[in-house]
Amino acid sequence: MTNEDTLIIGGKKLKNRLFLGTGKYGDHRVMEEAIKHAATQVVTVAMRRVDFENEEEDIVRLIPDNIILMPNTSGARTAEEAIRIARLARASGLGNWVKIEVISDQKYLLPDNQETLKATDTLVKEGFVVLPYMSPDLMAGKRMIEAGAEVVMPLGSPIGSNRGIRMKEMIQMMIDELSVPIIVDAGIGKPSEAAEAMEMGADAVLVNTAIATAGDPVQMARAFDLAVKAGRISYLSGFGSTSLKAQASSPLTGFLD
Amino acid sequence: MTNEDTLIIGGKKLKNRLFLGTGKYGDHRVMEEAIKHAATQVVTVAMRRVDFENEEEDIVRLIPDNIILMPNTSGARTAEEAIRIARLARASGLGNWVKIEVISDQKYLLPDNQETLKATDTLVKEGFVVLPYMSPDLMAGKRMIEAGAEVVMPLGSPIGSNRGIRMKEMIQMMIDELSVPIIVDAGIGKPSEAAEAMEMGADAVLVNTAIATAGDPVQMARAFDLAVKAGRISYLSGFGSTSLKAQASSPLTGFLD
Amino acid sequence: MTNEDTLIIGGKKLKNRLFLGTGKYGDHRVMEEAIKHAATQVVTVAMRRVDFENEEEDIVRLIPDNIILMPNTSGARTAEEAIRIARLARASGLGNWVKIEVISDQKYLLPDNQETLKATDTLVKEGFVVLPYMSPDLMAGKRMIEAGAEVVMPLGSPIGSNRGIRMKEMIQMMIDELSVPIIVDAGIGKPSEAAEAMEMGADAVLVNTAIATAGDPVQMARAFDLAVKAGRISYLSGFGSTSLKAQASSPLTGFLD
Amino acid sequence: MTNEDTLIIGGKKLKNRLFLGTGKYGDHRVMEEAIKHAATQVVTVAMRRVDFENEEEDIVRLIPDNIILMPNTSGARTAEEAIRIARLARASGLGNWVKIEVISDQKYLLPDNQETLKATDTLVKEGFVVLPYMSPDLMAGKRMIEAGAEVVMPLGSPIGSNRGIRMKEMIQMMIDELSVPIIVDAGIGKPSEAAEAMEMGADAVLVNTAIATAGDPVQMARAFDLAVKAGRISYLSGFGSTSLKAQASSPLTGFLD
Repeated sequence: MTNEDTLIIGGKKLKNRLFLGTGKYGDHRVMEEAIKHAATQVVTVAMRRVDFENEEEDIVRLIPDNIILMPNTSGARTAEEAIRIARLARASGLGNWVKIEVISDQKYLLPDNQETLKATDTLVKEGFVVLPYMSPDLMAGKRMIEAGAEVVMPLGSPIGSNRGIRMKEMIQMMIDELSVPIIVDAGIGKPSEAAEAMEMGADAVLVNTAIATAGDPVQMARAFDLAVKAGRISYLSGFGSTSLKAQASSPLTGFLD
Repeated sequence: MTNEDTLIIGGKKLKNRLFLGTGKYGDHRVMEEAIKHAATQVVTVAMRRVDFENEEEDIVRLIPDNIILMPNTSGARTAEEAIRIARLARASGLGNWVKIEVISDQKYLLPDNQETLKATDTLVKEGFVVLPYMSPDLMAGKRMIEAGAEVVMPLGSPIGSNRGIRMKEMIQMMIDELSVPIIVDAGIGKPSEAAEAMEMGADAVLVNTAIATAGDPVQMARAFDLAVKAGRISYLSGFGSTSLKAQASSPLTGFLD
Repeated sequence: MTNEDTLIIGGKKLKNRLFLGTGKYGDHRVMEEAIKHAATQVVTVAMRRVDFENEEEDIVRLIPDNIILMPNTSGARTAEEAIRIARLARASGLGNWVKIEVISDQKYLLPDNQETLKATDTLVKEGFVVLPYMSPDLMAGKRMIEAGAEVVMPLGSPIGSNRGIRMKEMIQMMIDELSVPIIVDAGIGKPSEAAEAMEMGADAVLVNTAIATAGDPVQMARAFDLAVKAGRISYLSGFGSTSLKAQASSPLTGFLD
Repeated sequence: MTNEDTLIIGGKKLKNRLFLGTGKYGDHRVMEEAIKHAATQVVTVAMRRVDFENEEEDIVRLIPDNIILMPNTSGARTAEEAIRIARLARASGLGNWVKIEVISDQKYLLPDNQETLKATDTLVKEGFVVLPYMSPDLMAGKRMIEAGAEVVMPLGSPIGSNRGIRMKEMIQMMIDELSVPIIVDAGIGKPSEAAEAMEMGADAVLVNTAIATAGDPVQMARAFDLAVKAGRISYLSGFGSTSLKAQASSPLTGFLD
């Protein structure tokens, strides 16, 4: 069954549904190992962290060739800024995928859906594969899709908070109603939460802080890989029903009667 | 790291922390496959379901030899009944492990901690490796240990309800305070919930209904195996801290300034 | 203390923080009694339910004179439709308050923040006191305020679902960050949930289904009145701290030592 | 309706369902005011805090005559100690009600159900009205009742933690299945949580830390009084049903069609 379970984004067939962020790693070698142990196929990098002049320090050169690089527009506060960053990324040879982040709130770092929609609209027309990071909102998700978004990426809870899927109610409605893949991005702090997102029917999750700030990031990456697979396989397998009362495993006649 | 991560119960070294129940399977072949895909090393069987006269139908003969059989006293309503069932199991050649279940409540099938403690006390003295199934209660857990229980098995929610770890608060206190392995038994309905139990620090989980009543029990068994491993590995790796506010992945100076 | 605790909206001083909806009542007399027992000062009525030709059946005539009538644009699927309904309401002598509802999703009845913002912008310029009903989203809330919204009304969970405050995370951020009153509207199913919204710091709640479909709507209205007051008073009183461990009420030296 | 809604314990008819503890108050006058504003009819006092030799400081003399005094055995680590404290209380003229607390765990202060049961059994035979404080456990509750407990008092979460009703699952089962009044005691930190306990069907709640450590304990006492009444009235009124989808307040045909 799972051999054929692929996720298609921007024409690429993906088998692994755990995407990784690259911020907050104390050490580049650890990040490389974490990427490997997560068995990830898509990695996001903030354009502002790309150091084109210093090859030694360039984070992009650390990403293996077989992994899709998804530059993000972190640092953009308006649609216009996000658009400029996206163009710069493509011009720099980083491909045509872009994760749009437009954030002007400095406390919770919540995305601005309206500006994100504007940037999505423009960049889709310019031929980008656009993956908008957004506050969970069903109607805003519909508009992202109308504008040509390849997927939608609702946040589980504020970036880096490790608080899990606090916006479950709205994310479930998005999963149930929207026609593109849903990638839960931000807030996932533990493998169980990644598994839960997949059990809800999400198509993928993006994890950064939970792995980068773990005691052992490499083992944590491996744990997330297993959890995402567990969640996906179980979702496809079909859950038994839940009940308020107990359901005996076998007839309740006394054994010794 | 995980090569050495073993759980020792009754002198046996276990590498796999997912225990399985054997009730509710529609078909014996499916159960055999599920056991295999769960990579389980311990399986529990209700003594009342053992059919000594009909070898063809005997559930015990379906369990591979390398798997530890843990007969349970399901159907017992008193300590005395549980003790008799345990003795019968050992006399039948099923080994000296016994999971004690004493249940007189017919609606929620909640275990009776007081009678369970009595049975534990007696059976430990008779040389059994006793694993009591119990309502989560820190003080009752302490007494089970004083009586010689090898582990304690608090329920997450009522048997067969698939409602998850509803007794989290008390189970966490048991994990933090008790000196024997904690196995969360009953109520776990999804792989994410099994992972969560392991992330809380549980030593193992026992799953039955969630797998046996899944659309595809064999794939669901595999998903639970992955989830338990994910939870365990992440627990050992050390979680990053959670925060109410967002934590940026990189400095928040505007990229284009 | 609470004598002076007033909420000011559109220049009106309100002492009571429970707003009521008028849908789903089986009987007009019950609705009148519920309004009275809720001690409410603001009531919302769907313009489409106003029957200008049949005085006998006109819901508006049932609302006591001392209560502020807030017509809503229920049934509008676009900003334009909401604007037309609002103008019609004012022209009909229903005052200049308007609760904007723009809903095109027929399953979850989720508001469309983008169209709602457009309608808010236009109607504020036309002199209305605008109270937009919206999906919880901090940045969208900021824009509503920039457009001149008098308050923002995020939903707790889908209209009529009685599921409580499922969007707690985002609503708390809106309460903490936004400069206008926050009224939690939709989804509140029990008095405890209304109290919780007030404890979180919401300025008011709007309740309809939970009262209208209760076994005894009049008593339920009274219960909600008490709960909203309880939540508000406790919020103003200042909560003690929470802790993971127990905190003894008195020194733990043994009494009998 | 509510005029006749009384709770009978030990032959006393109670109209108010909020019981108070007397620990942790910074000032005796504040405690007196809080008791008054909570409209409470039952107050518990730790026997070890009763100062028989110093009338000026004696907490018991501060409790108004029309309030039932319920001495508690706080400080007892065994059944025997609890029994001695109870006898001492009665011999001192504090009446024949006793709340049994037997706690040997010093971190979470969790009650010891087994010792509590022993003390209950003995004290009931000696004519006390016994109200056992216990860890939530349906079967242990049944035994308390068999031993003659007048009510059972399961904890919501550890004493003084202000964490709310974390043991909801088990408390709901106790409410549904047990034949005596259920009083949720310990852990309730906010009025909404008290309301929730009453909505679940609890017969009363006991609150101490949340009021005593509030910024304004007197107003907080008033808030709890309102919340308990709100929860009780709503429970008696009958809740409308909840649903996963939205339920429109009126027909969803467009208004302007």
